[in-house]
Amino acid sequence: MAARLGRVHSSIENGNLLSAVPRAIDGRQHVSFDRLFHPRGVAIIGASSDLTRIGGHPIKAMQNAGYKGGIFLVNPKYQEMHGLKCYPDAQSIGQQCDLAIIAVPAPAVANAIRDCGRAGISHAVVLTAGFRETGAEGRQLEAELKRAVRESGVRMVGPNCQGMLSLEARVWAAFGSVADETDFRPGNVSCAFQSGGFGYAIVNLAEAQGLGFRYCVSSGNETDIDTPELLAAFLDDVGTTAIFTYLEGTPNARRLLDVGRKSLETGKPVMIWKAATTDAGIKAAASHTANMTGSYDLYRAALRQSGLIEVDDVEPIVDIAKLFAQGRSPNGNSVGVLSISGGSGIVYADAAVRGGMTLPPFSEQTLVALRKIVPSFGSPENPADVTASFFNDMSLFTSALEIVLADPRLDQLSILLASISGSSAQRAAEAIAAVANRTDKPLHVAWSGRHAKSPEAIKAFSAAGVPFITTPVRLARAAAVLARFAADRRRLLPRRAPQVRLPADLELPAAAASLSETESKAVLRAFDVPIAREVLLSLGADATAAAAGLRPPFAVKIVSRDIPHKTEAGGVKLGVAKEGLGAAVRSVIDSALKAKPGAKIDGVLVAEMAQGIEVLIGVINDESFGPTIALALGGVLTEVLHDVTYRIAPFDLDTAREMIAELRGARLFDGYRGKPAADKEALAQT
Amino acid sequence: MAARLGRVHSSIENGNLLSAVPRAIDGRQHVSFDRLFHPRGVAIIGASSDLTRIGGHPIKAMQNAGYKGGIFLVNPKYQEMHGLKCYPDAQSIGQQCDLAIIAVPAPAVANAIRDCGRAGISHAVVLTAGFRETGAEGRQLEAELKRAVRESGVRMVGPNCQGMLSLEARVWAAFGSVADETDFRPGNVSCAFQSGGFGYAIVNLAEAQGLGFRYCVSSGNETDIDTPELLAAFLDDVGTTAIFTYLEGTPNARRLLDVGRKSLETGKPVMIWKAATTDAGIKAAASHTANMTGSYDLYRAALRQSGLIEVDDVEPIVDIAKLFAQGRSPNGNSVGVLSISGGSGIVYADAAVRGGMTLPPFSEQTLVALRKIVPSFGSPENPADVTASFFNDMSLFTSALEIVLADPRLDQLSILLASISGSSAQRAAEAIAAVANRTDKPLHVAWSGRHAKSPEAIKAFSAAGVPFITTPVRLARAAAVLARFAADRRRLLPRRAPQVRLPADLELPAAAASLSETESKAVLRAFDVPIAREVLLSLGADATAAAAGLRPPFAVKIVSRDIPHKTEAGGVKLGVAKEGLGAAVRSVIDSALKAKPGAKIDGVLVAEMAQGIEVLIGVINDESFGPTIALALGGVLTEVLHDVTYRIAPFDLDTAREMIAELRGARLFDGYRGKPAADKEALAQT
Repeated sequence: MAARLGRVHSSIENGNLLSAVPRAIDGRQHVSFDRLFHPRGVAIIGASSDLTRIGGHPIKAMQNAGYKGGIFLVNPKYQEMHGLKCYPDAQSIGQQCDLAIIAVPAPAVANAIRDCGRAGISHAVVLTAGFRETGAEGRQLEAELKRAVRESGVRMVGPNCQGMLSLEARVWAAFGSVADETDFRPGNVSCAFQSGGFGYAIVNLAEAQGLGFRYCVSSGNETDIDTPELLAAFLDDVGTTAIFTYLEGTPNARRLLDVGRKSLETGKPVMIWKAATTDAGIKAAASHTANMTGSYDLYRAALRQSGLIEVDDVEPIVDIAKLFAQGRSPNGNSVGVLSISGGSGIVYADAAVRGGMTLPPFSEQTLVALRKIVPSFGSPENPADVTASFFNDMSLFTSALEIVLADPRLDQLSILLASISGSSAQRAAEAIAAVANRTDKPLHVAWSGRHAKSPEAIKAFSAAGVPFITTPVRLARAAAVLARFAADRRRLLPRRAPQVRLPADLELPAAAASLSETESKAVLRAFDVPIAREVLLSLGADATAAAAGLRPPFAVKIVSRDIPHKTEAGGVKLGVAKEGLGAAVRSVIDSALKAKPGAKIDGVLVAEMAQGIEVLIGVINDESFGPTIALALGGVLTEVLHDVTYRIAPFDLDTAREMIAELRGARLFDGYRGKPAADKEALAQT
Repeated sequence: MAARLGRVHSSIENGNLLSAVPRAIDGRQHVSFDRLFHPRGVAIIGASSDLTRIGGHPIKAMQNAGYKGGIFLVNPKYQEMHGLKCYPDAQSIGQQCDLAIIAVPAPAVANAIRDCGRAGISHAVVLTAGFRETGAEGRQLEAELKRAVRESGVRMVGPNCQGMLSLEARVWAAFGSVADETDFRPGNVSCAFQSGGFGYAIVNLAEAQGLGFRYCVSSGNETDIDTPELLAAFLDDVGTTAIFTYLEGTPNARRLLDVGRKSLETGKPVMIWKAATTDAGIKAAASHTANMTGSYDLYRAALRQSGLIEVDDVEPIVDIAKLFAQGRSPNGNSVGVLSISGGSGIVYADAAVRGGMTLPPFSEQTLVALRKIVPSFGSPENPADVTASFFNDMSLFTSALEIVLADPRLDQLSILLASISGSSAQRAAEAIAAVANRTDKPLHVAWSGRHAKSPEAIKAFSAAGVPFITTPVRLARAAAVLARFAADRRRLLPRRAPQVRLPADLELPAAAASLSETESKAVLRAFDVPIAREVLLSLGADATAAAAGLRPPFAVKIVSRDIPHKTEAGGVKLGVAKEGLGAAVRSVIDSALKAKPGAKIDGVLVAEMAQGIEVLIGVINDESFGPTIALALGGVLTEVLHDVTYRIAPFDLDTAREMIAELRGARLFDGYRGKPAADKEALAQT
C-alpha cells in the first residue's frame, strides 16, 4: 500500500496541530433575530436635529419608509425634534422598544449600549465609526464596547457600519445614500456585507435589475454579530429564499462550513463574494475594516467543500437569485436550448459547458418532431435554432416548446429570445408562460429586449414566475450554478465527516512550532497512515548494519527540529545505493551542521525509497479555518506549477477522492486511483 | 547550444509545410466601402407588398429611419407599393443607386446580383437564406452566387444575413426586430457579426447601456465580404473609434493578424467575441452558418500575438468601448483609486491586479496631502477610501482628486462612487468633470446610481467625456484592457516578423502527409536549428561502429514515414549505453515491424541524448491560420498538463521569448532563459 502511494511527505505548519482549539465554537449563536428585524419600537440614540447628519438620516429614513411602530429619539439636549418627542436616555422611553440605532460619538457608544441593556432594548445597530479601524485608541474603545455588549446582553450590529434594512417591516436603520432609497420593493433575498457603502451599491444595482430584498445588513466591524451568524439567521428565516454576502474575511471562517451544510439542507443558495483575494486587495482590506482576510485558496476550498456559491460581481448575484426564485431544482446537469438565433445557442453552449453542464443530443422522438417544423436554415439539434420565422405562426413556437419539454434527457430548458420586443415579445412570453406551468423542470429565458417597449411580456413572464436574464452567456452561467447546487445537494448532503479521536499513546511536545520528521511520522503512524519503512540512526551508528533489513535505494535525511528545511541545508540524499550509504550519512550530517552550526541533531533517517508517485500531504493549522489538509503531487508539479488542492479537515473518503481528481496532474494516478484516497482518509484528522 | 536547449523534437502535422500557400493572401481587399455605407440610392429587390414579410421590413425601416436618398422598389408584379414606384428589375431604375437589398428566393439571388451589376449598383446586401447552411442544393446555389459576384463585380454582404445599418446615413438595410429599432442613436462604434439575430441583440443591449453605433453588419455566410475585410474597413473609417465582432470562424483567419497590427497602428481597439470555443459550441456552429470554427487555442494565440482584444459577453464590449471613447491612453500599467466606500476599492484592486494592472503606493507627497484630509475611518493609501463624509464638503473631494491626479506614479485614475444619487451625485460629477480637463490621463468612474434620479450627474459626466461604468469590477477589467492595449502598442508595433526564404538546397517530397524524422530534421538543419548529433543506420549496419563518434547515452529511434507515432510502436529506446546499442537497434526494428507489418523502414537513428530540458516544438499547418508554431515542455508537463503555447508563424525573437515565459513550467528555464528563444527564432519559418 505504501509502495503504491509513493512517499508521503508530511508537514505541519503554523503551530501545533493538537493545540488547535477550533475557534469556530466560541461564537455566540443567534437564538432569534426576530426582534432585530421586526422591532416593536425603534430608538435613535444620538438623534440629530440636522437631518443631513448621521444622527438625522435614520429619522428621515424611518419616517419616509413608513415604519409603523414607535420611533423614540434620544438626545438629552432636546425635548422634541422633527415632530417627535426626545428622551434624555433609553431608560426614559418606557415603551415597547426592541431596536436602538446608535449614532453617538465613539467614546459614548459603550455607555449607550449599557443604557439599552437597562432599558430592555435587546438589539442595537451602531453606525458610529472610530473603533479598531482607526488605530490603538479605537481598539481600546472597541474592547470596551465588546465588554458592554457581553455584560448588557444586547446583541449588536456594527460598529462602523452603514446600518440595516428590514423591508417588509419598513425598518430603515441606516444612514448614507440608502437612507434616501426607501422605495426599494420588498422581496425574498437577504444579504450581509462587510462594506456598507459598497454593499448598498450592490443592493441598489440588483434592485434596479429586478431583485426584491428582505433583510440587508451592513455588518461593519462585527464586534458582536458577524457574517456567519447572520447567514445562519437568514437560512432559518422562512421569508428568505436566497442569500448573498460580501465578505472580506472572518476569524471564524470554519463556521462557513456549517452555513454551507444548512444551505444544502434548506435548498436556499448562499452566494459569497470573497473580497481581498489578491495581495493588493488584502492590503486594501487591512486599512478598511482591519478584517482578517485569510487565505483565498482555503476559502475557495471551503466553499467547494460545503456547497456555498462563489460570486465576483453584481450580475451573477442577480442572475442566480432570479433562477433560484423559480423554486425548481434540476435532476441532473443536462440542459436543452431553444433559440431564435443561431449565435445565441452557440455562446450559450460554450458558457454552459464551461460551467459544467452538458447539452445532450435530443432524443430521437424529439428530433423527428422538431425536424417537421424547424426551417431548413435553422437547426433541430440541441441547441436548436427554430429561427425568428416562428413568430409568423406562434403555434409552431408552442409546439417546439412542448416537444423539447417532453424530452426526458433534459433537466433544464433555456429559451433564447435575442432582443425581440413589442408584440413578438408578448406572444413569445405568453406561449412560454403557458407551457411553464406544465412542467416542474427549471425553465428560463435569455432576453435583451427593452422592458419599456414590452410591458406585456414582462407581465406574462412575471405572472408565470419565469425568470428572464439579459444575455445567453449570463443565463448559461446561472443555470450551471443551479445545476451545480442541485448536484452538491445530492453529493454532499449524505457525507459526514468522520469523528476524530486522538490515539491515547500519542505524545508530542506541547508548544513546538514545528515537528521534526520523526515526530510528524509518529503522528501519521498513530492515525494508521502508511509510510515508507525506515530506520533512525543515532549519530555514529553503523549505517550499513542498521539498514540491513531495508531495500535500497535509500533516502537519507537529517533529523533535527532545528532544521525544518532539510533539502536546502543539504540534509537530504536520495537514491543512495547500499555501498554509498555510509558516505551519504556523513555528508548529510556535515552539510546540516554547516548550514546551521550548533543545530541539535537527533539522528539520520534511512528510508526505503518507495516506488510510485510522490505525494505531498500538508497539514495546516490555519488562522481562520483551523486544521486543513493540502494535497499536492511531488516533484516538478508542486514546485513549478503549484498543483495543490485543499480541504478543511475532517472530511470523508469521497472528499479525499475529489481532492485527487482536482489535481491537474490527476491523470498520473491512472489505474490505481482510489488507493491513495484511502490513505488520505486516514489523515483526515483534527 | 544544442546541449543547453535540450532535445528538439520536431513534428510537422497536417500536410507538407512548404506547400502551405497562405490562403490569407487570396481574399479580395476592400478598396472602399464608402458606397456600401453611404449609398446615393437604395434598391429593394424582392420588395413585398406585405410589410411583415422579409421583403417588407427594409421598406418600412428605410422609411422610418429617415433615409434621404432614393428608395427604389423592385418587384415585376407591381407598379407601385407603399407609396413608392416599383420597377420590374434593377436595370430599369435608371437613377443613382449604390446599394441593393436583396430578398428574392434563394434560386433567384444570383440573377438579382447580375441584374445589379448591369444596373451599375456596386453593393448588395442579401437577406435571403437557403444556401450552404441548408445542405447540398444550397451549396450549389451558393457556388453559383459566388460566380455571379465575381463576374458582376458587385460586392456583397450575406447571403443568409439579417442585414446592415449605417446609422448616420440612416440606412436600415435589415429585417427582423432591428428593423423596428430605427431610433438607435448614432455613434462611433462599428461592428460585424456572423449571427444576425444575436448580433443585433448585442447591439440592442449595448445601445441601451449607452453605446452609439456607426456601422453594424450581419455578415451571414460571408460568400464575398467577410469579417476580416469588414474589420479592416472599419479601421480605415475615420468616423469609427471602436470595433467589435462576433466571430464563429473564418477560413482566412491569418488576416486577423493584419487587422490586429492595423488596430495597434490606428489606436482603435478591435474586440473579438470568438464563439464556438467548446465542443458543444463547435457542434452548434456547424449547423448554424457552417462556418469553419478553427482551433480556439490558435485564435487565442493570434489575438494575443497581434493586439486584438478578446471579449465574451456584452458587458465587456460596452465597458471597453466606453473607456476607449475618452481617447486617452495610459503610459503604463499603474492605476490610482479614490473611493467613497472601502469595499469598492478592495474588489477593484482584486480585479485590477488579475487584469495585469498594479496599484502602486502613492508618492510620499500624495500621502502627506491625503492624510491631512481623509478621516481616520477612511484610508489615504491606494486604493484610497476618502469616505462618503466628503460630500459634506465638496472642496475636500476636489482636493483629493487634484492630489491624486498630480501623482506621477499613476497612469490612470478610477473614482468609485458606489450608488450615490441626487445632489451628491451631481456635485461629485461636477467636481470630477472639472478636474478631468486638467489631465490627459484616463480618468473614469464606477457608479451604480440610478440614472433617472441623477440626470444632472449624467449631463456633467457626458459633457466632460468622463466614462462611467456600473460596477468597480467591470471598471477595473475595462481599465486593465485599456492598459494592456497601450502596452501592446508599445511592445508589438516595433516588431517585424522576419523574412523567410527557403534554402535552395532543401528537397522534400511534394505531397507527403507527414515527414519522417530525418526529413523533418533536414528541414530544421536547413534553417540552422541546432539538433542533437546523430547517425542514421541503414538496416543491418554495425551500430557500434557507426556510433563510435557519438557520446553515450544514446536515443535509438526507428525511421519510417509509415510510423509517425514511434513511441507507441515501440520504436524508441532512450538512455541506451554503448554496450546495449546493438540490442536496442534490433529491438526497435522488431517492435516497429510488429506494430506495423510491412512498414518501409528507412533505418534507425542513433542520437546523442542532449542534456537539459526536453522541449517540444511542433509546426502545424493549420486550416485557418496556416503555419503555426507550438511550444511545449517535454515529458510529464506536456502529456499530463497540456502545457503548450502557440504563435502564428513567422514571428520574431521577442515573441519566441514570450512563448517560453507563457509556459506554466517556464520556471524550469531558470538561469538560461533566452538561449532557447534564439533557437526557436530559427524555427520561425513559413
